[in-house]
Amino acid sequence: MRKFDLIAFDADDTLWYTEKTYREIQHSFERIMAPYQVSSDIEQAIEQIEIPNLRFYGYGLQGYILSLIETAIIISAGKITGADILNLISLGKNALDAEIQLLEHVEPTLNELSARYPLMLITKGELLHQEKKISRSGLRDFFSRIEIVSEKTVETYRTILTKNRIEASRFLMVGDSLRSDIQPVIETGGYAVHIPSHFVWKHENSTIVDETHSRFHRLEHIGMLPSLLEVLE
Amino acid sequence: MRKFDLIAFDADDTLWYTEKTYREIQHSFERIMAPYQVSSDIEQAIEQIEIPNLRFYGYGLQGYILSLIETAIIISAGKITGADILNLISLGKNALDAEIQLLEHVEPTLNELSARYPLMLITKGELLHQEKKISRSGLRDFFSRIEIVSEKTVETYRTILTKNRIEASRFLMVGDSLRSDIQPVIETGGYAVHIPSHFVWKHENSTIVDETHSRFHRLEHIGMLPSLLEVLE
Repeated sequence: MRKFDLIAFDADDTLWYTEKTYREIQHSFERIMAPYQVSSDIEQAIEQIEIPNLRFYGYGLQGYILSLIETAIIISAGKITGADILNLISLGKNALDAEIQLLEHVEPTLNELSARYPLMLITKGELLHQEKKISRSGLRDFFSRIEIVSEKTVETYRTILTKNRIEASRFLMVGDSLRSDIQPVIETGGYAVHIPSHFVWKHENSTIVDETHSRFHRLEHIGMLPSLLEVLE
Repeated sequence: MRKFDLIAFDADDTLWYTEKTYREIQHSFERIMAPYQVSSDIEQAIEQIEIPNLRFYGYGLQGYILSLIETAIIISAGKITGADILNLISLGKNALDAEIQLLEHVEPTLNELSARYPLMLITKGELLHQEKKISRSGLRDFFSRIEIVSEKTVETYRTILTKNRIEASRFLMVGDSLRSDIQPVIETGGYAVHIPSHFVWKHENSTIVDETHSRFHRLEHIGMLPSLLEVLE
C-alpha cells in the first residue's frame, strides 16, 4: 500500500522563481531612490512599512508596490517626484506581466511523480497573478487539484484535507517556506519536505521547526524528491 | 421534484454594498485633486487608466488605488504631493478594513432559502479582501460552498458546475452584474436573476442580455426571490 494519498507542492520559489523578482524590484527601487540621498537603511525601511501592511494587502505584488510607494514618500520626506512613482508602478506592472522561470529539475520531477501520485498545488497570494503564473508555467496538467489561498495555516491545511478526504498522515507537502509549507503541515500531522530556496524572504523562514521530527525531511533540490519517496514508501 | 439543485449568489452589490465604497473613494479623490486645478474630466481620466490596468491588477481595491495614484500623477502633470499620495493610500487601507454594510432583505432571505436549497457564494476580486468581507458579513454559514474567482466567464461557471456535479439547467444565479452574473449563466444554460444595484459600475453592465429569455428574470430586491422561486418551482 502507498504511504501517501496526496503530494502537494508550494509554487513560489518551490516550482518557479519569485523572491528573485522582489529582489530585482528592490534593487530598482534603490536606484530610483539614490538621487534623494536617503540616509536610512532602505531594506529596513521597506520592511517596516511592508510587514504591517500585509494585514491590509495580503501577499502579492500589488501590495508590495503600494508599500514601496509609501516607503519612497516617507524616506524621501515627500520629495519623490511623480515621475519616479510612475516608475515604481511600472516595475509592478512589468513583474505582473513577466514570463516565469521554472526552478531546475521541476518539470521532469513533476512528470515522473504525477504518474504515481495525485499531485496538488497549494499557493498563496493574489488570485489573478497566481492563476496567470500557473497558466504560464506549463505545469497545470501535472496537478489534479489547485488551491490558491490567502494564508497557509494549520486551519488552511485542515480545510484542504477535509475537503479532499485525505488523512493528514497520508499527506506530504513540499515547499521552501518553514512558516507556510512546513511548520503547519507537521502540526496538522502530515509529512513535510523542506527545499530551501536560494532567495529567502525572512518573513517566511523565521518560524522554528523541529528538524529532528520523523515527518520532517530536507532536500537540496526538487530532483531528489523521487528518491526520498522511494525510501519513505 | 425541485427545479434547482443549487442557488448561487454574487456578493459585491448583491449581498453588501461595494460600488458605494468606490464612489466614496472617487469623491475623496476629487477633493484631494481640487487644489491642482485639473482641467480634464476626473471620472473619465480614472476610467482611461483603470480599465486597461484590469489586465494587470484584476478586480479589487489595491488595483483601484494603484490606478488612482497613476491618474493623480498624470492629470496633475506630476505636481501631486507625496502627502496627497499617502492620503490616497490611506483611503485604500481604510476601505480594506471597513465594516461591510448588508443590503436590505439579505439576511432574512438567505435564512429562508438556506433551509430549502444548498446555497453557494460566487464572488470575484482579491482573495484576502473577499475572505474578510465574507467573514465580517456574518453570512458565511448560509453557504455550503464558496468560490472566489478572478473573473466570471462561461468557462468559470462551467468549471464550478462540473466540479459540483450540477446540471446547468438546475442551477440558478442571482446577481447585479449583467456582464458577470447574468449573461454567462444564461449562455451556460442556467437560470439567472438580475437584481439591479443602486450603484452601477458601467464596466459590469455594458453587456447585452436577451431580457426576453425564458431563463432570465429581474427583481427589484433580493427579498422578492422566495416568491419568484415559488412560481418557478
